[in-house]
Amino acid sequence: MRAIGIETGGGGPRLLDVPRPDPKPGEVLVRTLRVGVDGTDHEVVAGAHGGPPPGAEHLVLGHEAVGVVVDPTTTDFEAGDIVAPTVRRPPPDGTNEYFERAEPDMAPPDACVECGIDGAHGFMSEYFTSPAPYLIPVPEACAEWGFLVEPISVSEKALDLARASRSSFTWSPETALVLGNGPLGLVTVAMLVPDLDVYCLGRRDRPDPSIDLIEALGATYVDARETPVDAVASVHEPMDLVYEATGYAKHAIECVDALAPNGVAALLGVPQSWEFSVDGGHFHRELVMTNKALVGSVNAGPSHFHAAVDRLASLPDWFFDDYVTEVAPVESFEAAFDPDAAMKIAVEFGTR
Amino acid sequence: MRAIGIETGGGGPRLLDVPRPDPKPGEVLVRTLRVGVDGTDHEVVAGAHGGPPPGAEHLVLGHEAVGVVVDPTTTDFEAGDIVAPTVRRPPPDGTNEYFERAEPDMAPPDACVECGIDGAHGFMSEYFTSPAPYLIPVPEACAEWGFLVEPISVSEKALDLARASRSSFTWSPETALVLGNGPLGLVTVAMLVPDLDVYCLGRRDRPDPSIDLIEALGATYVDARETPVDAVASVHEPMDLVYEATGYAKHAIECVDALAPNGVAALLGVPQSWEFSVDGGHFHRELVMTNKALVGSVNAGPSHFHAAVDRLASLPDWFFDDYVTEVAPVESFEAAFDPDAAMKIAVEFGTR
Repeated sequence: MRAIGIETGGGGPRLLDVPRPDPKPGEVLVRTLRVGVDGTDHEVVAGAHGGPPPGAEHLVLGHEAVGVVVDPTTTDFEAGDIVAPTVRRPPPDGTNEYFERAEPDMAPPDACVECGIDGAHGFMSEYFTSPAPYLIPVPEACAEWGFLVEPISVSEKALDLARASRSSFTWSPETALVLGNGPLGLVTVAMLVPDLDVYCLGRRDRPDPSIDLIEALGATYVDARETPVDAVASVHEPMDLVYEATGYAKHAIECVDALAPNGVAALLGVPQSWEFSVDGGHFHRELVMTNKALVGSVNAGPSHFHAAVDRLASLPDWFFDDYVTEVAPVESFEAAFDPDAAMKIAVEFGTR
Repeated sequence: MRAIGIETGGGGPRLLDVPRPDPKPGEVLVRTLRVGVDGTDHEVVAGAHGGPPPGAEHLVLGHEAVGVVVDPTTTDFEAGDIVAPTVRRPPPDGTNEYFERAEPDMAPPDACVECGIDGAHGFMSEYFTSPAPYLIPVPEACAEWGFLVEPISVSEKALDLARASRSSFTWSPETALVLGNGPLGLVTVAMLVPDLDVYCLGRRDRPDPSIDLIEALGATYVDARETPVDAVASVHEPMDLVYEATGYAKHAIECVDALAPNGVAALLGVPQSWEFSVDGGHFHRELVMTNKALVGSVNAGPSHFHAAVDRLASLPDWFFDDYVTEVAPVESFEAAFDPDAAMKIAVEFGTR
């Protein structure tokens, strides 16, 4: 069957011919519909992160997938069910406490593999198999956009951690700043606008489809070149919540100045090492004197995937039409790997 | 009556003669027993923090107090009740939401005054008055050490925030690192040892009473000159919880390397501005990839004071004997303001 992956020799993503997998009892055979592409895929393609399963010469890419059950084997799924797979799997040496309590997102990096990213094949193939517990049911009406369940789950988890960090006192957030107007930032703006006054910071010139989408959602675009993160509170307003999706290391420090008292910043970016000078005394003092918090967040667990399915169903149809600017057929999958793409792109393997 | 305070002209703490306060209806007249001294007092004395009430030429010091009710006026207290006062009061322009919901510790600095610290007189006087809601009942058996309710409340609040930040997943902390073997660090070690393997980091040479106390509590002393914060995880073990009570700005960054995956650092120190170089990419990536959190914490609310009363009652008697090395009578109060004191010191105004 056809798959899209990278090979250990290097080079970009290419079309591979791999065997169609055979589900064991307890596994489900899924026919892939669509698979999204995100910043992690670009890092994997660039060789900056992750790699093939032990002993393999290639890695099938793709961790944002939706598909349709073809063979449920002994599981409770039925042929025709729409499902989105979770990303993390137990490491080769077996399961561990994080998987046993359905919190794979809390596993340290050496206690898991990640499908399509690190140590396990992903879902960019005509078919994939998965143990039933790693498949999240998606309503049929959401099948078209079901590949967004995974990125939304990542935000659900980060917001869950952020809210939890403020749960020991009365916290009624009114304002949020999303750092980054890439695909993850944009969908998070869509998630937050029903409840908060949302600002989204980027570095793009108008006219730009991401700025148009931010404004169509009722949020405010902040050009970082005019208003850096540490000026947002004075130029606009202090933020109860900051959601960082840039991977720009200075944001982890500067975000404290964008926060309102008692606010929290959720960090999701994964920067490389970078030495720079900071006023560490100011950073420390601001956190303490105004009860601020920083929470790092990676991946998502089954509960966040389920929340993401509900969230997906709540987003307006026009949002998806504007947000997903390209669904490339497998034959021309290269279009889905444009690292400068402003908006969300997916590869389509099939339709229902 | 006699009080200990500072005057706007400068100079150290001195004995003042101030009018004995008259309680209004709803207020309580309290006869002071003991008042502790901490790092904040030293900052106030040094002029680095806080100041007198508007229009006043002096500030009565002291925010860690215990006393006995003399005149309960119209309140539910009775003469003879032992009480510890909370520290924050509404600002001169009236109350606000934080006080209305009994969360004064969450008020931004401009939405409160702090008795004995900033904008309101403290409790280092023979008598003080307080509205009843700002007095926490203390069992008679705890009267002697009741001045520790306030510093313990500060730790209760920080630990509360830290636990909350980990409440969206299964978190079973086993290890803790307390940064700082000053009075606040030491009492926090005592609070944590029943439940966790506790390490306490300092910069003192043996023999030293704080090191003796750390070890008597069953905790491990870590000499920062041999094992800096970012080496603790490899030399000892990764820490589920870090509690920072040094005010050393680099600790707010370095603590991330002492944390175990999914760990949290509670920051309590209040450093001055200080520019230094950090690997901000590493700091950011560590927070994200291993779901770590930083929570800043200041002051404490009534719920934390109540928890502190319970905690005080749970600590062994020998701890107090070793921890409180001096209770100076008012006449020789200067002994209580030694900034190099390793252990806890209080001023005694009277006995029951």
